[in-house]
Amino acid sequence: MERIDQLNQHGLKIIQSSEVFSYSVDALLLAHFGYVPKYGVVLDLCAGNGAVGLLASERSQAHFHFIELQQRLANMAERSIQLNAKEAQCEVHCADVKQLQTLFAPNSVDAILCNPPYFPVQKRSKKNPNPYLAIARHELYANIEDIIQQASFVLKTKGHLTLVHRPERFLPILTCLQAHRLAPKKVRFIYSKEDRPAKVMLIEAIKDGSQEGFIIAPPLVIQDENNQYTKEMQDILYG
Amino acid sequence: MERIDQLNQHGLKIIQSSEVFSYSVDALLLAHFGYVPKYGVVLDLCAGNGAVGLLASERSQAHFHFIELQQRLANMAERSIQLNAKEAQCEVHCADVKQLQTLFAPNSVDAILCNPPYFPVQKRSKKNPNPYLAIARHELYANIEDIIQQASFVLKTKGHLTLVHRPERFLPILTCLQAHRLAPKKVRFIYSKEDRPAKVMLIEAIKDGSQEGFIIAPPLVIQDENNQYTKEMQDILYG
Repeated sequence: MERIDQLNQHGLKIIQSSEVFSYSVDALLLAHFGYVPKYGVVLDLCAGNGAVGLLASERSQAHFHFIELQQRLANMAERSIQLNAKEAQCEVHCADVKQLQTLFAPNSVDAILCNPPYFPVQKRSKKNPNPYLAIARHELYANIEDIIQQASFVLKTKGHLTLVHRPERFLPILTCLQAHRLAPKKVRFIYSKEDRPAKVMLIEAIKDGSQEGFIIAPPLVIQDENNQYTKEMQDILYG
Repeated sequence: MERIDQLNQHGLKIIQSSEVFSYSVDALLLAHFGYVPKYGVVLDLCAGNGAVGLLASERSQAHFHFIELQQRLANMAERSIQLNAKEAQCEVHCADVKQLQTLFAPNSVDAILCNPPYFPVQKRSKKNPNPYLAIARHELYANIEDIIQQASFVLKTKGHLTLVHRPERFLPILTCLQAHRLAPKKVRFIYSKEDRPAKVMLIEAIKDGSQEGFIIAPPLVIQDENNQYTKEMQDILYG
């Protein structure tokens, strides 16, 4: 069963389905903080129902390509684009992220946003019994190394990749980015409460960027001690 | 000119000198958060006037060795140890951290705390004209790679190294730790204000530790929007 939700206070709409795919807070964080240029070509990899790309397209005139493996989700993203009359700016490719280099020329993309599956596939790991959600959450079809390698191939020199991921994967992701000519430039950690370890991280990397100027951006705390959204989180959620 | 300052609310005292060396807030952060075992052998590398080791020794019965290259500072640390009647627990070695492996056997140390010089030596970099402070702040005699390599050599398997450093050196430090069998386990970022990039970081690594279980600890914000110390910072400063 599908429903239409409102994505932001400007009336952006999105088709969701709790059985198939609904966007997460992490998608909102990525859409909010991810680097997008004013013009050029932007990719939303592992696009799901398109929330990240739709939101990010609001602050850019770049052309957005949404890459989503699952036909059902790609179709939802497609219909959300139509619903918002964004066909001229946004298009969906139902494709495997591992085939990115067959879809885009090397050095042709200005920025990439990606909210990938977080969980490695291990024999014993519990997967979601729902196949749509399992593919979105587990590295069943592409792992983070595949994604980073493909992203680096299609990005222009000085092109930006912004990833959202979990801090427990921080060290191997940093190593992988650097092995693929992507210099980490800015990391932001997101904490559910101010006294808890970080739950989510945003990493921005620049292709062939210099080793200088790396920063850890201000912390983002989601809820205060009374379980209310902090001011900054309210701005992200409600605009 | 020297003076005697009080280091904590339990009356711990330290000999300081603004011309030669005074401990920094970073030293307090390291002393507060650095891992020290209840018993065993702990090193304070680049000990300066001994603030880190003296403070950390208050919560442990381990034997503390302070390693300091500069004779004048080593002598101040020595006299601070006497002033606090800690000669049985703490001793000072006036030695080059690059010679650590001649002072301690391999696999003999349980934990190391280190507040190293932060700044690389570059031809054009401004150095402090005061030679004591220049050596304490710039990598004139030992750089972070030297320190990590020596620390790894003397640490036991599962021994802990806690470093305080600047976020702009984060990526090469992570790479260097991992190259020397030190698995980063916990990182804490310190922000002067909640809306500014991190200014300082604490990194805890375990020799031959597993790749699992890496965490980004809760953020520490030093001052609130009214330029007052936050509750947690007050606890660190005043106990």
